[in-house]
Amino acid sequence: MNASAKDAYRKLLAHSQELGLIANVVNLLQWDEDTNLPPRGVEYRAEQLSYLVGLVHSKGTAPEIGEWLQECEEGGAQGDIDAGPNIREWRRDYDRQLKLPARLVQELAHTSSLAREAWLEARRTANFALFQPKLTRIVELCREKADAWATCPSRYDTLLDSYEQDARTADLRPLFADLQQRIATLLPAAIARTASTPADLLKGNYPEAQQAKLNRVISEAIGFDFNAGRMDVSPHPFCCSPGPRDVRITTRYDETNFTSSLFGVMHECGHAMYDQGLPADRVAQPLGEAVSLGIHESQSRLWENQLGRSAAFWRHWYPTAIEFFPSVAAVPLDSFLLAVNRVEPSFIRVDADEVTYNLHILLRFEMEHALIEGKLSVADLPDAWNTRFEELFGLKVPDDGKGCLQDIHWCSGGFGYFPTYTLGTLNAAQLFHAANTQVPALAGEIASGHYAGLRKWLNTNVHAHGRRYTPQELMRLATGESTNARYFCDYLEEKFLPA
Amino acid sequence: MNASAKDAYRKLLAHSQELGLIANVVNLLQWDEDTNLPPRGVEYRAEQLSYLVGLVHSKGTAPEIGEWLQECEEGGAQGDIDAGPNIREWRRDYDRQLKLPARLVQELAHTSSLAREAWLEARRTANFALFQPKLTRIVELCREKADAWATCPSRYDTLLDSYEQDARTADLRPLFADLQQRIATLLPAAIARTASTPADLLKGNYPEAQQAKLNRVISEAIGFDFNAGRMDVSPHPFCCSPGPRDVRITTRYDETNFTSSLFGVMHECGHAMYDQGLPADRVAQPLGEAVSLGIHESQSRLWENQLGRSAAFWRHWYPTAIEFFPSVAAVPLDSFLLAVNRVEPSFIRVDADEVTYNLHILLRFEMEHALIEGKLSVADLPDAWNTRFEELFGLKVPDDGKGCLQDIHWCSGGFGYFPTYTLGTLNAAQLFHAANTQVPALAGEIASGHYAGLRKWLNTNVHAHGRRYTPQELMRLATGESTNARYFCDYLEEKFLPA
Repeated sequence: MNASAKDAYRKLLAHSQELGLIANVVNLLQWDEDTNLPPRGVEYRAEQLSYLVGLVHSKGTAPEIGEWLQECEEGGAQGDIDAGPNIREWRRDYDRQLKLPARLVQELAHTSSLAREAWLEARRTANFALFQPKLTRIVELCREKADAWATCPSRYDTLLDSYEQDARTADLRPLFADLQQRIATLLPAAIARTASTPADLLKGNYPEAQQAKLNRVISEAIGFDFNAGRMDVSPHPFCCSPGPRDVRITTRYDETNFTSSLFGVMHECGHAMYDQGLPADRVAQPLGEAVSLGIHESQSRLWENQLGRSAAFWRHWYPTAIEFFPSVAAVPLDSFLLAVNRVEPSFIRVDADEVTYNLHILLRFEMEHALIEGKLSVADLPDAWNTRFEELFGLKVPDDGKGCLQDIHWCSGGFGYFPTYTLGTLNAAQLFHAANTQVPALAGEIASGHYAGLRKWLNTNVHAHGRRYTPQELMRLATGESTNARYFCDYLEEKFLPA
Repeated sequence: MNASAKDAYRKLLAHSQELGLIANVVNLLQWDEDTNLPPRGVEYRAEQLSYLVGLVHSKGTAPEIGEWLQECEEGGAQGDIDAGPNIREWRRDYDRQLKLPARLVQELAHTSSLAREAWLEARRTANFALFQPKLTRIVELCREKADAWATCPSRYDTLLDSYEQDARTADLRPLFADLQQRIATLLPAAIARTASTPADLLKGNYPEAQQAKLNRVISEAIGFDFNAGRMDVSPHPFCCSPGPRDVRITTRYDETNFTSSLFGVMHECGHAMYDQGLPADRVAQPLGEAVSLGIHESQSRLWENQLGRSAAFWRHWYPTAIEFFPSVAAVPLDSFLLAVNRVEPSFIRVDADEVTYNLHILLRFEMEHALIEGKLSVADLPDAWNTRFEELFGLKVPDDGKGCLQDIHWCSGGFGYFPTYTLGTLNAAQLFHAANTQVPALAGEIASGHYAGLRKWLNTNVHAHGRRYTPQELMRLATGESTNARYFCDYLEEKFLPA
């Protein structure tokens, strides 16, 4: 790296720090909006957010960034072990941001914000017509966004690539087909295996304060650092980082069922431990940022499912659950495990079991691909959804509220986001398998309630890299293979098929 | 107002909105730091705050503001009923900000932040020597700040004026002397009157959750709007507004004594109702801002003391207190009232009773005046403090931790701030007297637990004006007189002297 490249790189680092400070303030404002903000404060908060987001955008597209990047690229910075990946990722982000006209960004933000109201009302009244004009405009704007970016030959791939670098429809199709086929084979047996356990076996009275205490005990045990994070309550659980050592998760409570909050917390802890595990000396550089949604989701799924719904986990924690909730003693451990792993096709994605969950994603992938590629009109979405839903799940969708209106993603323009949930699910199983293969001691540690070895493996093989590798490079380095359905399907079969 | 003044005024309004958005984000970050921030997040939060405070300063001193102000002043904007006061106050703020060199602002912030650690340690170990070098530098920097501003002939008055517009030592001296004399006369009788009630009469077991519920019931009853605010827990109670309809108060709990938290909450509610009562259509304009610390403090004192420690208030709420805490029934109402109004000289200002409280302020006023005017060296402060304390309180200061090290104000450069506490105390009594005189129905309403009339009077006569008038203009308009000690002393005499 020559002297002028070094100088430009220093400027990029400083500028990135500044952008990071503001972006993290935005995170705090959003976290506060979901957890604390009094109702009459919402309007002013929207103004604050829009101002700061605008500031991030204008500072993030400043022409000098392009000049500094060019000086780095021409001055040999790309060969540097650390500067190289940073430059590469900054370039990727900058070019993408620069291509979006401010008008489009603003119209998308504005339309999404109005669409949110319409969507909430449409979902509440199961009346798609209320949302249709807004969704039509959002699809148009997302297509326009894809055209502006044009990083891939197809619009959908351009959008997908913005959430999951290098993910392509051509690769996802066979992956999803493989998954679908193995799930179709497995599903009847899994339903039969768990059907004898009543759906409400664990229904009881679990006071919120007591649930919060158990959640905290288990969060700390698996490794969430409360000195660098917190846990709060919000209508929809999420994880957010207003600073590199300030990672916040939320949950919600159902006082008739303590496991829904607990699994939610373990899920968010998985996200949070990724953020807490990013290299602290690389704050606001690509090398200190999470690599993709599909990798992020692998961390949450791993702790929630591979670990949290396993027999090994509950053999250790079942006595603690009884200490907190004595009524649980009436449910034998075997039945408890069947209850928290019960498989049954249902309408709402976020309540779905591990087996049918990915069918929900498959459906959405097909629908949104067709919408963006112009093969399905928004007006025809409900019928197309319902027909395909019945094919996949064997259930008739009762109304659009339980059908194509149930998720917020399209309403906020998130086309191309859904596949990352399934990628995350597959990655989770694949990473957990690799960790256990590479470190044979893990199984014994987990059986005795110790997770430091697993955390260390994930940190070394995933967290510590930041965006040094692309998601699939990372998967290959960590597991020896690109993302595939095998480990997840093996995991399901082992869990749900008779031994 | 001519066309170019109108145009400049519009620009000032827009610019002021922008500055307000950022300043309110700063408020949220500070609130979050005191209530939520995990320990390892503190360092990064300091960076975020320093960045945003710097942004506010650089945007607040932009040269175009001066040009716009001049156009307004030359174009007749000052004659406009609304633009006039806004221009006047913007000019005051701008000129003051502009006079401070960035170097001085930064050094003061930096020194204060380091001084805070030294002060905490010095107070903990009652070792003034640990704090002396830092305080010496802070006094120097505050004198330098006064010289840079130079709004008044004396340094101390310049600092005082920055907290309380138009307040002058020459006016405060006779006011404080008057107050001191009447307190000296009253004190022995007030001590005697309440001495028969043991200090720990109300000591008991009051679970935090139950206290929080009672605090909420009473806050809502007196008029704090929870749709435009919230109540949280922090080590030191405060009130803060991250937005015009988002006013947040905090409290702390002592489970052996429910009144300390309750009176604290009523105090903060007084501040909060001022902020919630500012004109919503004047956000980020002087006409929508609180006028001064001395007026702000009048609102908190009024609800905490004039109302909250009165017999009329407790005649209504005593049965509710018993509902929440049955053990209170063992204390007859008369004794309860004596207990929450007990007078006894003591060392710590924030724990002081209503009568001796102002002697604490008087002492600090004398000390800080002498320090800033160069008549007392920092090295001589402890002796000077202790000597004067004994004269005023008849008590020997046991150590500097209970003496000149007890408050944080000087440590953060807050010279000139203390007198506003006493001004607020006097204003509270004067405003409460005026409200009751002008609206004779108030006494009856208050006796039956209704406070809307009192709130309305305060809103009309104080909150709604924003910074239209100076603090003393406001007092004259609302009460017919400038701030004086008469109403407060009459109030104390009525409460503490035998009928």
